[in-house]
Amino acid sequence: MAEVKEVKEITGGVTAAKGFRAAAAAAEIKYKGRTDMAMIYSETPCVAAGTFTTNVVKAAPVKWDQNVVYHHPAAQAVICNSGIANACTGEEGYGYCRQTAEAAAEILGIPTESVLVASTGVIGMQIPIDRIVNGVKMMVPVLADTLEAGTEAAKAIMTTDTVKKEVAVQVEIGGKTVTVGGMCKGSGMIHPNMCTMLGFVTTDAAISKEMLQLALSEDVKDTYNMVSVDGDTSTNDTVLLLANGKAENPEITEKNQDFELFCKALSYVNTTLAKSIAGDGEGATALFEVKIVGAKSKEQAVTLAKSVVTSSLTKAAIYGHDANWGRILCAMGYSGAQFDPEKVDLYFESKAGKLKIIENGVSTGYSEEEATKILSQEAVTAIADIKMGTAQATAWGCDLTYDYIKINADYRS
Amino acid sequence: MAEVKEVKEITGGVTAAKGFRAAAAAAEIKYKGRTDMAMIYSETPCVAAGTFTTNVVKAAPVKWDQNVVYHHPAAQAVICNSGIANACTGEEGYGYCRQTAEAAAEILGIPTESVLVASTGVIGMQIPIDRIVNGVKMMVPVLADTLEAGTEAAKAIMTTDTVKKEVAVQVEIGGKTVTVGGMCKGSGMIHPNMCTMLGFVTTDAAISKEMLQLALSEDVKDTYNMVSVDGDTSTNDTVLLLANGKAENPEITEKNQDFELFCKALSYVNTTLAKSIAGDGEGATALFEVKIVGAKSKEQAVTLAKSVVTSSLTKAAIYGHDANWGRILCAMGYSGAQFDPEKVDLYFESKAGKLKIIENGVSTGYSEEEATKILSQEAVTAIADIKMGTAQATAWGCDLTYDYIKINADYRS
Repeated sequence: MAEVKEVKEITGGVTAAKGFRAAAAAAEIKYKGRTDMAMIYSETPCVAAGTFTTNVVKAAPVKWDQNVVYHHPAAQAVICNSGIANACTGEEGYGYCRQTAEAAAEILGIPTESVLVASTGVIGMQIPIDRIVNGVKMMVPVLADTLEAGTEAAKAIMTTDTVKKEVAVQVEIGGKTVTVGGMCKGSGMIHPNMCTMLGFVTTDAAISKEMLQLALSEDVKDTYNMVSVDGDTSTNDTVLLLANGKAENPEITEKNQDFELFCKALSYVNTTLAKSIAGDGEGATALFEVKIVGAKSKEQAVTLAKSVVTSSLTKAAIYGHDANWGRILCAMGYSGAQFDPEKVDLYFESKAGKLKIIENGVSTGYSEEEATKILSQEAVTAIADIKMGTAQATAWGCDLTYDYIKINADYRS
Repeated sequence: MAEVKEVKEITGGVTAAKGFRAAAAAAEIKYKGRTDMAMIYSETPCVAAGTFTTNVVKAAPVKWDQNVVYHHPAAQAVICNSGIANACTGEEGYGYCRQTAEAAAEILGIPTESVLVASTGVIGMQIPIDRIVNGVKMMVPVLADTLEAGTEAAKAIMTTDTVKKEVAVQVEIGGKTVTVGGMCKGSGMIHPNMCTMLGFVTTDAAISKEMLQLALSEDVKDTYNMVSVDGDTSTNDTVLLLANGKAENPEITEKNQDFELFCKALSYVNTTLAKSIAGDGEGATALFEVKIVGAKSKEQAVTLAKSVVTSSLTKAAIYGHDANWGRILCAMGYSGAQFDPEKVDLYFESKAGKLKIIENGVSTGYSEEEATKILSQEAVTAIADIKMGTAQATAWGCDLTYDYIKINADYRS
């Protein structure tokens, strides 16, 4: 992302932009001895955009948020819990979303339909609504606009994540400094087909609801939707983007230079968060990046990149630092995209170097030792050139390890 | 398969049918101290049918066999090696297929184009053709029509398989006893999109080439194509079916009762082999069967069953004997098939009993203890009733375990 000179990374997350506050609480929804609820609040009403799971089985909070984002003009708060997903919970589960929003709305003095909710955790259990409401009551008085408050919120939404995930950037738009900050969480059931498990991005940009949704919808295609940890598209995938206009830039209402700048800032935040999810996939020891270049179309490049990054055999080989390139070519082959295997060049790259592994579909006779050195880094990239055109795509995943099995064989206990 | 009364299982494999011989050899293709080449030979020319991988990256033997099956009237021998897949090996690799066939043809005194070849193992390496030819020379003199010879062949084609896989059946057709026998091998890179890794079926039935191909093509859809170990469709998937007519039944040349009987026998063999591949998936401790019932169409049922059986999270839960049904509903939800999650009933079944887990999309409040007991068996079934019609489909897979990672993180060493 070095080429995006206009966008400057700063410290912070969801509270980096003006007028946003956050809080966390240990509400004992399912976990003990840690925070498990988070709240984001804007001092003034925001326009909101959202992208949601394409899974036919949608969690109750997804349905609630779709209604808020699609049918109401403004949003002002987000309430999130970890531990229980509130998915496959029927009308009772949807009722708890409403009760959560009502409780927050009443204390904050805002409309119920301006409160977004999100949940992550076990599917099929009902959330303990009394504890959720109690958590909301605990959080409202401690809402703060400090960076620490944002970090506490980022920690509270973690499930099997091993690190909190947040990032913030600034960009100059119309003579004003606009800030975009976000947080997200992984790290299992990650194969977003619309957006990642849970991502929350806030900005003080002045932008219309239509342009905000357009910016988000376009950007998730290249960011969250290019991440796969395990091929399982969750019932809860949600990215919410709130804009409160406090940067006082001229309102963005059309596709102009200001919009492009805003999109670059948003893309930086989403790309960083998406990669952090992939690198912190359940049990992962390495971030695995797959670049397809020389493609005939973007769609073809996306299909190929996603197929490789999702291949269990390839992921296991990455864990073993094994340059088993046949599995990569094989995964490209069953992706559904057409190409000529006998024209493919493949490279492995990491901070330890770059090595051409196959040329025109057959081994270059590369050094296995050098390949293993390259593949033993924390972030490794496979680059396949299919020599059909100029389109390209990048997907992010991780290796498949013993710990993935350990985490998921007994997740509910 | 208890309902198929006409079909009787007997002992044996590829040598069970009249006029078929087999042999194995330790040719040191890649493994040491074990057999790694197998041969099937029919005393008289056979009509041959085949189904092959849909992977764009096709191994050289797949291309060779497609030419034989599609463009030549007869086949009489199959030469198979394990250890090296002869995939991604360019023209050199294809040349080795021809040399293998030529060597066998010369010794056996049959046309080169009646020799089928198959390989399984590491992708990207060239096969040592001198050792292959030497293996052929070792096998021809010891070809035998005993059941033991068939078993030795089944053992020689194993890679990471833990057990050899063979089965044979008999069925009465036109007053004659027709025998169908087969062997196959798994057990990684198994998500056949045409047929399984390698399967060889022989029969003494008299049947035309057209009807033989029709029988095979239809049957693989319900058998090998419903197996997934890891979602990776191999470059080498091949099922070959040879019929030499020695049973002397009236030749089957059209869709009549005789054809139906033959199809039942073939289906028994293929189903048994397909399930044995799933149950012996790399690292597997359990055969995982997924039945979708009450579907609107066969296609919908297939899509849903395959999505569940392929889900890493579901497979890890099966390994943990954990009734984490939310993952099953989630995998159905992202399959691409439409259904109403709030109408789904789900059961777990094994020899320890049957339990209704969810009814109309929500938990029945079942006993976790009882569910764990059912899920702790060597073969477990999940049955989802989506209440839209009468179509159904069954898919077979296995659990996802530490050993899968162990086997695949360092497969090439």
